[in-house]
Amino acid sequence: MESKKLGRQTVRFAHPPAIAGFGSAVGRKEREGPLGQCFDFASADDTFAQMSWEKAETAMQKQALSFALQRAGLTAEDLDYVFAGDLLNQCIATSYSLRAQNVPFFGLYGACSTMAEGLSLGAMLVEGGFARAVAAMTSSHFCSAERQYRSPLEYGGQKSPTAQWTATGAGAVILTRQGKGPFVTHVTTGKVVDKGICDTSNMGAAMAPAAYATLRAHLEETGRAPDFYDLIVTGDLGSLGKEILMDFFRQDGIDLTGRYEDCGVMLFDRKRQDVHAGASGCGCSAVVLTGHLLRQMGAGGPCRNLLFCGTGALHSPTSALQGESIPGICHAVAIAAEKGETL
Amino acid sequence: MESKKLGRQTVRFAHPPAIAGFGSAVGRKEREGPLGQCFDFASADDTFAQMSWEKAETAMQKQALSFALQRAGLTAEDLDYVFAGDLLNQCIATSYSLRAQNVPFFGLYGACSTMAEGLSLGAMLVEGGFARAVAAMTSSHFCSAERQYRSPLEYGGQKSPTAQWTATGAGAVILTRQGKGPFVTHVTTGKVVDKGICDTSNMGAAMAPAAYATLRAHLEETGRAPDFYDLIVTGDLGSLGKEILMDFFRQDGIDLTGRYEDCGVMLFDRKRQDVHAGASGCGCSAVVLTGHLLRQMGAGGPCRNLLFCGTGALHSPTSALQGESIPGICHAVAIAAEKGETL
Repeated sequence: MESKKLGRQTVRFAHPPAIAGFGSAVGRKEREGPLGQCFDFASADDTFAQMSWEKAETAMQKQALSFALQRAGLTAEDLDYVFAGDLLNQCIATSYSLRAQNVPFFGLYGACSTMAEGLSLGAMLVEGGFARAVAAMTSSHFCSAERQYRSPLEYGGQKSPTAQWTATGAGAVILTRQGKGPFVTHVTTGKVVDKGICDTSNMGAAMAPAAYATLRAHLEETGRAPDFYDLIVTGDLGSLGKEILMDFFRQDGIDLTGRYEDCGVMLFDRKRQDVHAGASGCGCSAVVLTGHLLRQMGAGGPCRNLLFCGTGALHSPTSALQGESIPGICHAVAIAAEKGETL
Repeated sequence: MESKKLGRQTVRFAHPPAIAGFGSAVGRKEREGPLGQCFDFASADDTFAQMSWEKAETAMQKQALSFALQRAGLTAEDLDYVFAGDLLNQCIATSYSLRAQNVPFFGLYGACSTMAEGLSLGAMLVEGGFARAVAAMTSSHFCSAERQYRSPLEYGGQKSPTAQWTATGAGAVILTRQGKGPFVTHVTTGKVVDKGICDTSNMGAAMAPAAYATLRAHLEETGRAPDFYDLIVTGDLGSLGKEILMDFFRQDGIDLTGRYEDCGVMLFDRKRQDVHAGASGCGCSAVVLTGHLLRQMGAGGPCRNLLFCGTGALHSPTSALQGESIPGICHAVAIAAEKGETL
């Protein structure tokens, strides 16, 4: 059997899986942001009618999956696999959301790269003939993340200007073997990259080198220039990490201005919403993709070729206390509005 | 393209990936157990010459992968993907162990089912033509797990008789497209199963229903009877969960006696080693597989057909404190010594 790999990190699909559905659910602050009108559902008070923030996150995942299935005209019973994970310890938002679904499940941990990781694996299983339909899903919740990673909300801790604001949101995408598109045409899988950044309030700086490494690999292995894409998005480097990534490319003589954006910058209005360096969390890139970007790729939409690069910081509060630096990873997924543009 | 699925949960491989290498590293107590002489390396004091238990776990993973690669005659550069995860919050044992390896990485969270999950995904990517060689890897460490899930060691807390002892160990398996075997012939992917058990000191009871569900699905979808297999192993239900699983099958008129064992029961001598209901942790089934079971499948070995069923409990300390029950999952991987026996 011939390898489907281009170089070491990229797979090109001869039969690109279709994105048959997508769904999103967000919190109030996300609803009040610049993309607020794009999401399928927003909770007025971020509780999603649950008794704990963790259960709220689970409820959000169920809603996102439900919208995605509805749009695809499928039920959970039609899914061969779900790929999902989240930021909570032991990924409990996910395992509790899938307790209600009768579907084979692969649990992922990729921090904020989880949506891209799930899309990558899901697309390979569909194209490989192992599945007709799969879902990729993830979430984050500002309040459950604050409690776990930082301080209880009641403490009212100050944040440094380089810190990001964990998005409250869940996104789900359904991939199928047949469909009208858009289509997943390539996936480039990241390696762990660690340049020694130890400041957990500056995740953008920690993850930018991983984003750069995966983007470079993707462009080299596909032979594409950045301007092949109408939009390259990372998710989520925030405003500082975005600048660092653009600087890396400038040193290579490549100017990404106008063609590159970061989901952490897109989700909130930084002037109006006091989110410091922008948004973060698994849910951020997931809802920007499922609420906004995929809508831009419909018939006649402005975006025909998208490179979606999920970026994750793979540290923990324990590793930070032990003085360890923050390893990063980035997985890139190329999405084309039409199949014909893929090869 | 024809689906490779048998029923809803099982994939049968037309070209079964080969297990080209396997490696294991364990702690002192595991070395002193009944399988002690099988492992590639044992640390005399469980520190693996590191300054923290978390870093010890990372060091153990690197050793296991190194032994597995050596046995396969490969280097990390030859791997298309590594599938790995562990029990620590944010899976840090894994992300730090792979920081040193120049290889595309998919992070998993499947609790103690991680080795089976990684083998399942790795085998699909190899058979699907996306990879020539992949690794599946996982670990657990008694001391890092106690600190995170229970009490600091210094506290000297008592355990209930139904509790299990987290194994200190890491295992890695290399799958390749070509090889002498043994071969991964089928994978059956689990669903989340939760029968309402809330006692985190009785994980065997929480996971046994998931193991039963996946085993039933595997047997039905493949049309095999349990006696097709020389050995069916779960990992890790412990002594109590093992009895519960055998009871479930007895109610179906099936007696698994003599054909079924649990990795949590095999790793330690419960009479001599004071481990209550047996071993647990991602590392337990990983080292029983890589230290003992796969050695039984070599040329002329006593085991020609093995069904390896990884079982994971998908709760967290937070979900337990919130009164939630413990969801379980089980992924089954069928391994045959010879290719001819697979279809």
